[in-house]
Parts: sequence; structure tokens; C-alpha cells
Amino acid sequence: MPTRLEQQIAFILEIDRLKTVLRQTVLTDKSRHENTAEHSWHLAMMALVLAEHANEKPDLMRVLKMALIHDIVEIDAGDTFCYDEVGYEDKAEREQRAADRLFSLLPENQGKEFRTLWEEFELGVSQDARFAAGLDRLQPVLLNLATDGYSWQKHGIAREQIVARNELMADGSQPLWDHVTGLLDEAVASGMIPEKRPPARN
Amino acid sequence: MPTRLEQQIAFILEIDRLKTVLRQTVLTDKSRHENTAEHSWHLAMMALVLAEHANEKPDLMRVLKMALIHDIVEIDAGDTFCYDEVGYEDKAEREQRAADRLFSLLPENQGKEFRTLWEEFELGVSQDARFAAGLDRLQPVLLNLATDGYSWQKHGIAREQIVARNELMADGSQPLWDHVTGLLDEAVASGMIPEKRPPARN
Repeated sequence: MPTRLEQQIAFILEIDRLKTVLRQTVLTDKSRHENTAEHSWHLAMMALVLAEHANEKPDLMRVLKMALIHDIVEIDAGDTFCYDEVGYEDKAEREQRAADRLFSLLPENQGKEFRTLWEEFELGVSQDARFAAGLDRLQPVLLNLATDGYSWQKHGIAREQIVARNELMADGSQPLWDHVTGLLDEAVASGMIPEKRPPARN
Repeated sequence: MPTRLEQQIAFILEIDRLKTVLRQTVLTDKSRHENTAEHSWHLAMMALVLAEHANEKPDLMRVLKMALIHDIVEIDAGDTFCYDEVGYEDKAEREQRAADRLFSLLPENQGKEFRTLWEEFELGVSQDARFAAGLDRLQPVLLNLATDGYSWQKHGIAREQIVARNELMADGSQPLWDHVTGLLDEAVASGMIPEKRPPARN
């Protein structure tokens, strides 16, 4: 039987693999795609810096924990691009299986705590979860804006799609969402992104 | 004048560059070197998982903040390999200049908080700082042990050097240091690393 510490170290080594899961966004210097581990660090930093803009004063420890663990399931389930409608069909099932395996590597009380926090984040059932989820939308928007709309342009994404995908940010922070819509207006005005999707041809 | 939110977003975009600072350690799959942003995420996860092993019950929020920000200065100052004696000569000066520039991007109260936490971590002047610094030593040791001693072998590092470099881990957590010395004994027994440095020839 592994000791409690041995279980914890096995989990710590297993989650190292999150560093190899690539996202659609690129770094601000456009040198490469971002991976999910460094994205999670960035998100935790954003929680520290931006907490004052939450609609309700958040429990920062809970928000930080959610930011750090929210994407660990991607080790097994992979990253699903947020504008990929087909990939979203079985996303929940793939991620539940991943959560079963990964969090059960930990001692039972810790695995249960992380699993509960992850589900709270996914379901957005608390103000802390909605604020954390809002930051999770804000982070790739900021990276896209800083890279001339890199992944938006690559996939032909228009402002109306970005708004539809990200407007739940307002449930966590109205001030952050107001700021983002202003930045998106500027992105349309500068020609970075179109306002609307072009009509489908056939 | 930038607004408070604009200052915060400028900082968030600037620290994206931490993802491009490479360390000597490699990922557990040995596919590439680790960068400092994902290392910081890994460290924050270790703080969550291993807090119960601290010599004194830590203030987890403070430990998490230190884990997240402790290496931000490397954006300007670069990563100094922990067995590089020459690189250590001007490390403190380079990092102070980096802290001056980077933390001053933030609104003053936040920049001051991060700067103070970073100095507390660097100086190891509290139990929280010593626990965080101990985890910062443990993380590359675990990655090295999981990769057949990759960076130790590359640089010809012996057990006695690893012990000299990392034994301050015991100031933060005696149980973690005891566990590590056991793992290092096994690494010597298996031939992964030598016990002592070979005598210098000339």
C-alpha cells in the first residue's frame, strides 16, 4: 500500500502531463501555442490581480484552487477549442472519466475536495465559480487581442461569436465584461475581426 | 493616465513572457525543457497537495501567492541553474532590478504586496516562505528522479551536491526532506547518480 505522501507525489508527477496539452491560443510573442499548465498559472495570477472587479467579493482561496485545477481533466480528455461545436458533444463525458481517474490518485479527502471544486467550476453554481469561469474566458481573449487576433483569424471567428461565447463573463464580473466589449469594438474598428460571420455559401 | 484596470491588464500581458523562460529540468516525458510559468503552476499545486507536511501549519494563501509570483523576476533576469556558482554572483542584483520594473507595472498597493511577498520568499524570513522555498527545491528533484536524473547527469551532479543544495527543505518540511533523502539513497543504489563528485584532475 502506498503511503499518503506516496499517493500525493504520484498525483504531482501525473499532472506534469498538463504541460503537454496544447491550446488554440498562442503566446503574446506568437512563438508557439500555449499549454494548459501555463494557462492555469496565468489564470491564477489573474485571480490575484483582478479579484477586486468581481460582482461579489470572492473567496479568493476557492477561486485560486479552481483556477489551478479547472483543466487538469484535459490530461486525459484533451483541450476542446471553445468554438468547436462537434468537440463539445462528448466533452462532458470525456472529462468525467478523466476526473474519475486523475483525482482518485490522491488521498480520498483531497481527491474529493478537488473533484467537488472542479464540478462547482464546471457547473457555475456559485459566485466564486462564475468569477473563475469569467477569468477563464478573459484570458484567451486578452491573448488574442495581444496577437492581432491570432486564433480568431485562423478560424474565421467574428465579434458576434466572441460575444456569444464569452458574455457569461458578466455573471462573474460586469466591469471586466464591459471592458472587453470596448476592446472588441476597437478590434472590429481596426479590421482585426469582422462584426458578423459571413453568410454561408453553397 | 491608464486606469487601474488597464495597469492590471498590462501586467497580466507582460507576465505572459514567463512562459518563454526555460529551466534546466525537463518534463517527465523528457520531450522538452520546462518553462518557469508551468513550473510555478506545478509549485502552486504542490502547495495545495502537500501543505499538511509543513513543519508548522502554513498560511496557505500566502504560500500560494509566493509560489505563483516567486519567479516572475526571471522575465528580465533569466533562470539561474541552481548548481551554477558563477551565475549566482550577480543573481540578486539582476533580480532586484527586474522586481523594480515588473511589479511597478501594477497599481501601487498590489505591486507593493507582490514585491514584499517576493522578498519574504527570497530571504526565507518566515515559516510560510521556508515552506514555499522547500517546495521550490522539491519540484525539480521530483522531476529529475522521474527522468533518470536528466539534468543531474547532464551536469555531472552527485548526491552530496543535491543534498547541499536542497537540505534547507527540512526548514520548511522535515517529513518531505526525509522522504527525499530516501529517494536519493535509492538513486545512488541504482546508479542514477554518484554519491560524491569525482576528485578534480589536473
